[in-house]
Amino acid sequence: MVVSADTHVYPVLWQTDHLVLIDQRQLPERYHIVSIHRWEDVLQALQSGIVQGGSALGLAAAYGLYLAAREMPTEDPGVLWERLTTLGEQFKQTRPDKANLQWAVEQMLGLGHHPEAPVDSLRQQLLEQAQAMQAEDFRRCHAIGDYGLSQLPGQPQQLTLFTHCNHGALATSGYGTSLGVVRSAWREGRLARVYAGETRPTLQGSRLTAWECVQEGIPVTVVTDSMAAHCMQQGLIHGVLVGADRIAANGDVISKVGTYSLAVVAKAHGIPFLVAAPVSTIDFRIAAGQDMALSQHDPQEIYRLGERMTSPQGADFYNPASDLTPAHLITAIVTEQGAFAPDQLASLEVG
Amino acid sequence: MVVSADTHVYPVLWQTDHLVLIDQRQLPERYHIVSIHRWEDVLQALQSGIVQGGSALGLAAAYGLYLAAREMPTEDPGVLWERLTTLGEQFKQTRPDKANLQWAVEQMLGLGHHPEAPVDSLRQQLLEQAQAMQAEDFRRCHAIGDYGLSQLPGQPQQLTLFTHCNHGALATSGYGTSLGVVRSAWREGRLARVYAGETRPTLQGSRLTAWECVQEGIPVTVVTDSMAAHCMQQGLIHGVLVGADRIAANGDVISKVGTYSLAVVAKAHGIPFLVAAPVSTIDFRIAAGQDMALSQHDPQEIYRLGERMTSPQGADFYNPASDLTPAHLITAIVTEQGAFAPDQLASLEVG
Repeated sequence: MVVSADTHVYPVLWQTDHLVLIDQRQLPERYHIVSIHRWEDVLQALQSGIVQGGSALGLAAAYGLYLAAREMPTEDPGVLWERLTTLGEQFKQTRPDKANLQWAVEQMLGLGHHPEAPVDSLRQQLLEQAQAMQAEDFRRCHAIGDYGLSQLPGQPQQLTLFTHCNHGALATSGYGTSLGVVRSAWREGRLARVYAGETRPTLQGSRLTAWECVQEGIPVTVVTDSMAAHCMQQGLIHGVLVGADRIAANGDVISKVGTYSLAVVAKAHGIPFLVAAPVSTIDFRIAAGQDMALSQHDPQEIYRLGERMTSPQGADFYNPASDLTPAHLITAIVTEQGAFAPDQLASLEVG
Repeated sequence: MVVSADTHVYPVLWQTDHLVLIDQRQLPERYHIVSIHRWEDVLQALQSGIVQGGSALGLAAAYGLYLAAREMPTEDPGVLWERLTTLGEQFKQTRPDKANLQWAVEQMLGLGHHPEAPVDSLRQQLLEQAQAMQAEDFRRCHAIGDYGLSQLPGQPQQLTLFTHCNHGALATSGYGTSLGVVRSAWREGRLARVYAGETRPTLQGSRLTAWECVQEGIPVTVVTDSMAAHCMQQGLIHGVLVGADRIAANGDVISKVGTYSLAVVAKAHGIPFLVAAPVSTIDFRIAAGQDMALSQHDPQEIYRLGERMTSPQGADFYNPASDLTPAHLITAIVTEQGAFAPDQLASLEVG
């Protein structure tokens, strides 16, 4: 897929003969574009956080593998494939926790080793595969956005939606999952405003979601996470949109820490709580949420603000990366195949 | 009251002939003590945020008025009193939103103008009044702490308590209201650990509550506000302690923003939710919480971290200073006259 540089946000963009990335580390202070012609620079972009978010990481790695094949000075398909398999492992190891990155590399290597195929044809296949994956991700996000829109309350006409973290264009091919629902609502004239929870400790809501909204002209109000319940009590919020890291077969959701708190307060106010994520996020082998491990991040994320220590020496810290939202708090899980009540996910497994 | 400088925390301390303040702006990075001999420096300390918290502000202003009287070159009680009345107004205007500051200045000026009294005797009365107010505040906090302890669950023996903001020693004469309950629990061997919610946007929990706990040797874990529900879900928390800015006659509470969210999630987990505050916080003229105005703070508190902008230009911000917790979410309101179910506050009015 080749898209022109317009007001929309494309974190991973193929431009004629090279890759263009948005440097997310510099947002929202600076909009800085990185042009990449060599695979080593893709690897470095994944390692350094220029690209973040499962789908975006996977797409960058896919193009990285094509770039590697392009610059490899061999006409032997066996040599090419052996080298790509090694590099694929390097890409995967940059973020072993990101299922979509692992999946994308496997998809690229899944083209398979064809001893008889000319190397130039293999190279072309790799580029086409990366582009097809990007187009597919874009279609998937659009479908999630549109299915999500159908789940939002019919009244009022102009809705105000609360979001958490950044499951947006920056984390995908360019439309987002939970922010895809926001974009679809905006496109259809159903959106008055987004309230973006800042999402401590690393502020993806304040930094990235707010930035994406501003790019699209969507009115956005940033609040601290602790203000969500107050905003609901004031009647400001008509729906809550979150993403997911993993979903169990029973509809329990593992997502960015703070999601569970939002689900509890949304339930207490009778506000719809939608989880937007591709079907690949659902792991039907896992029966329930308590069987999914929660990882922890560096405690520095809590006690450091720039150069400043905000907590005393001697204090302890707890920094879970994600939390568990039980299915009974979730109004619907919105996928590219439709929106489902959490206890109806099984119909997707059969499909 | 004269207390020695030990491991305890006294934000406003009278030492023989001068006032000693802890500079809260520099916590937790530096513990810096300011010695003050002149009333102008007290005024400046209130204006600049060296002292914060209702009771502490009031006590500093009380000593400030004594210092003013001490240095005033007059033996005419009428001149002295006229000048003190003007200065009292200046002190009150430093933080017009703080009821306790207003009250403390009135208490000092309430000594009244006695045309026949020698000025030296008036000066002595002012010092004694300030010291009596401090001792009274200290006794009040201890009573709140002990009554709060009696409201905590009997099991387990060693409790883990979640706190919000800093209603601690630093905000009072040296024991705290909600942190007074923590101190009483610690003294009685009933406390395993404090979970301090960081309290965005200005991080009183992370900066001040955690610092106070470390001074006392109380184990403290700092988490983001969005993690409170997750901690409760994990079974880590046995009780939640918060303070109050104002309390309506029906038991509705206005307090630091984020308090309401904590109350909702505590209720959802069946965890006791205690509001600790002196009786003076209850305004019996106000029937219910929705009759109390909520103020807003500077939006910069949300989008600035040090020198860094964490949100894009073009985003909006909402920064309510406080929120409303309805009485039905509150287990008990703990005062120096005892702990009360919210619907039993009326018995205090009669008393």
